[in-house]
Amino acid sequence: MGPGPISAYPGVLRAMSAPLVGQYDPFMTSAMVETQELYRSVWATRNDATLLIDGTSRAGIEAALVSLLRPGDRVLVPVFGRFGHLLAEIAERAMAEVHIIETGWGQVFPVSAIEEAIVRVKPHLLALVQGDTSTTMNQPLDEVGAVCARHGVLFYSDATASLGGNDFETDAWGLDAATAGLQKCLGGPSGSSPITLSDRAVAVISSRKRIEAGIREQDDPDAADFVRSNYFDLGMILDYWGPRRLNHHTEATSMLYGARECARLLLAEGREAVIERHRLAGEAMLAGVRGLGLTVFGDVAHKMNNVVAVEIPDGVPGDTARAALLDDFAIEIGTSFGPLHGRVWRIGTMGYNARKDAVLTTLAALEAVLRRFGAPVPVGGGVEAAADVYRGA
Amino acid sequence: MGPGPISAYPGVLRAMSAPLVGQYDPFMTSAMVETQELYRSVWATRNDATLLIDGTSRAGIEAALVSLLRPGDRVLVPVFGRFGHLLAEIAERAMAEVHIIETGWGQVFPVSAIEEAIVRVKPHLLALVQGDTSTTMNQPLDEVGAVCARHGVLFYSDATASLGGNDFETDAWGLDAATAGLQKCLGGPSGSSPITLSDRAVAVISSRKRIEAGIREQDDPDAADFVRSNYFDLGMILDYWGPRRLNHHTEATSMLYGARECARLLLAEGREAVIERHRLAGEAMLAGVRGLGLTVFGDVAHKMNNVVAVEIPDGVPGDTARAALLDDFAIEIGTSFGPLHGRVWRIGTMGYNARKDAVLTTLAALEAVLRRFGAPVPVGGGVEAAADVYRGA
Repeated sequence: MGPGPISAYPGVLRAMSAPLVGQYDPFMTSAMVETQELYRSVWATRNDATLLIDGTSRAGIEAALVSLLRPGDRVLVPVFGRFGHLLAEIAERAMAEVHIIETGWGQVFPVSAIEEAIVRVKPHLLALVQGDTSTTMNQPLDEVGAVCARHGVLFYSDATASLGGNDFETDAWGLDAATAGLQKCLGGPSGSSPITLSDRAVAVISSRKRIEAGIREQDDPDAADFVRSNYFDLGMILDYWGPRRLNHHTEATSMLYGARECARLLLAEGREAVIERHRLAGEAMLAGVRGLGLTVFGDVAHKMNNVVAVEIPDGVPGDTARAALLDDFAIEIGTSFGPLHGRVWRIGTMGYNARKDAVLTTLAALEAVLRRFGAPVPVGGGVEAAADVYRGA
Repeated sequence: MGPGPISAYPGVLRAMSAPLVGQYDPFMTSAMVETQELYRSVWATRNDATLLIDGTSRAGIEAALVSLLRPGDRVLVPVFGRFGHLLAEIAERAMAEVHIIETGWGQVFPVSAIEEAIVRVKPHLLALVQGDTSTTMNQPLDEVGAVCARHGVLFYSDATASLGGNDFETDAWGLDAATAGLQKCLGGPSGSSPITLSDRAVAVISSRKRIEAGIREQDDPDAADFVRSNYFDLGMILDYWGPRRLNHHTEATSMLYGARECARLLLAEGREAVIERHRLAGEAMLAGVRGLGLTVFGDVAHKMNNVVAVEIPDGVPGDTARAALLDDFAIEIGTSFGPLHGRVWRIGTMGYNARKDAVLTTLAALEAVLRRFGAPVPVGGGVEAAADVYRGA
């Protein structure tokens, strides 16, 4: 019940133990095509360039940023938590000219602040986290795409922590690129990163395309302005997933099976229904921690559905209490990073864990642990407040 | 029965469906420590810095090269097949000064040719493929480390295709860095890349260490000479796998379970016994394809144990025949890349597929397909020649 990775759906784990086949076996290539189609629905997009990056969620981030940013390109990164810093850091390493704007941890940006910075910086790309688990905040994106379009800026969002548990509308919101991971609301293991790219993003990437010497043919282009990574060169990755099936990496078959099953389960339950399940679990957990007398961190109106941060009560040793919760109840919750390390606990309700029994069990265990460490806790205050939310639903 | 990816060991597939835990759960961190220890035995090394890169085998290659090579550093790459070109290409993208020497496809380099080039180029690093599946050749490495040591050159080898099925002695051969993948002789799925680094390699990496802004503390260093990738910065990855457990990516739990099981199975059977099983299967397959009247490609004395290339007989449509083998017998074999595309078939005997029944069944099916396409084939010539090898063993 931490901020992710979380327990996977049992069906996803089963899918990962299916037999392997060769990378050009029609069974494998059709599994790749099917996975692309499933993720178009997950991302709410018609983008042809919708696929998986073989690595954890930050592999997807790096693939997007190094492929879209040329050295020296200006990028604007609004930072409202650790993962904004991560985007800035990855862009810096890609030798982009990085401009950041910051807001306090626990807040999000009004769209006007983003537009103002865009006008000032004139970036090639806006890189914006949707849900930053370090603070639990969910940055509204719905009006940002229009701002980017108005100023001719590419719009990338990191939806690792939010996709599947909160609304995300790739096409309707005007995204050019978005990436995620499986280990949050999608209910799978870390190690595969879904990505989607607009035609505008693909055009930038194609202009930098370079084909490996070992498999290059006479009339293949060899861009001088190539991406400074082979593994993350989306131009080559698109050629591998596309009809040409030009060999790049060897697709991670078991992770593909897992990613496909994450999407299948989400779409079988229904995209809206899954988001609503996360909303309900999040509301119940929020009511529950308040029922235990805990203070919620940050701007609750902009909290992600799938994680809540609470201030660790005075006198309670945060890490020791977390360890007791894990050791006695086999329930994991998290602390946070940087300024929030040791100051808050983060409790997740995502993917398979966005369930009533998981919420109520966690609150019952947390009550026991808080009491053991001397915090004043209303008897049953957490469980009953959360159960009330479910009763009212 | 292609050149990889191959069918995984059933136990590895089962291991991948185990439940997930949080990344700092003691169960998880002890699984990471155990995996490191197992791979030290697989690599025949005492290197503390032995771990997994979360990505396919070329993710491991890129991590090694971008972390060891500064922009402008000279690197020498002896190329004897497609994967030598890949090392050169990755090093070029890392903005190293790349020098290659080439030999014909189907040959390996004498150590004297490598030393001569080292004297001439004076590289910072020698990057040398061990087994290049594109040609099936196995470059001898046993004397190369001493040459590198004599000239003060770091020695990296890509053992993706060879590790586990052919001898590889990290410490005894003087390697500074080596990487692999699971999908060849280790008998697992693509998606995790074992890596090992000598203390000398770690010193180079540590001198470039940079800690992410979002989690950096007051007295952490921030190297100016940082690695131009976040995901592949081995300095940060070592901090995550090391006692400090500094958050970087979220370790890909299911892939870790799979990688751990690959190593466990290899060590339970015995490192030498597994190599011998590959040697025997390779010898049987070699005898078998010759028994079918096929011409073997390349310098057979330097062939990897786990793959053989044969010239496609005149008049036989290579890709159609391969498709028939897959469609009628569910057996996949490969063609190759570049100059060998459509000229040879490559048949693997690796990992779980390095078994007598797999070898004999493949030869029986190949005989049927060759006959169907009009090639003159001695009746039972493949199966009996291979069975003879097993009988004599």
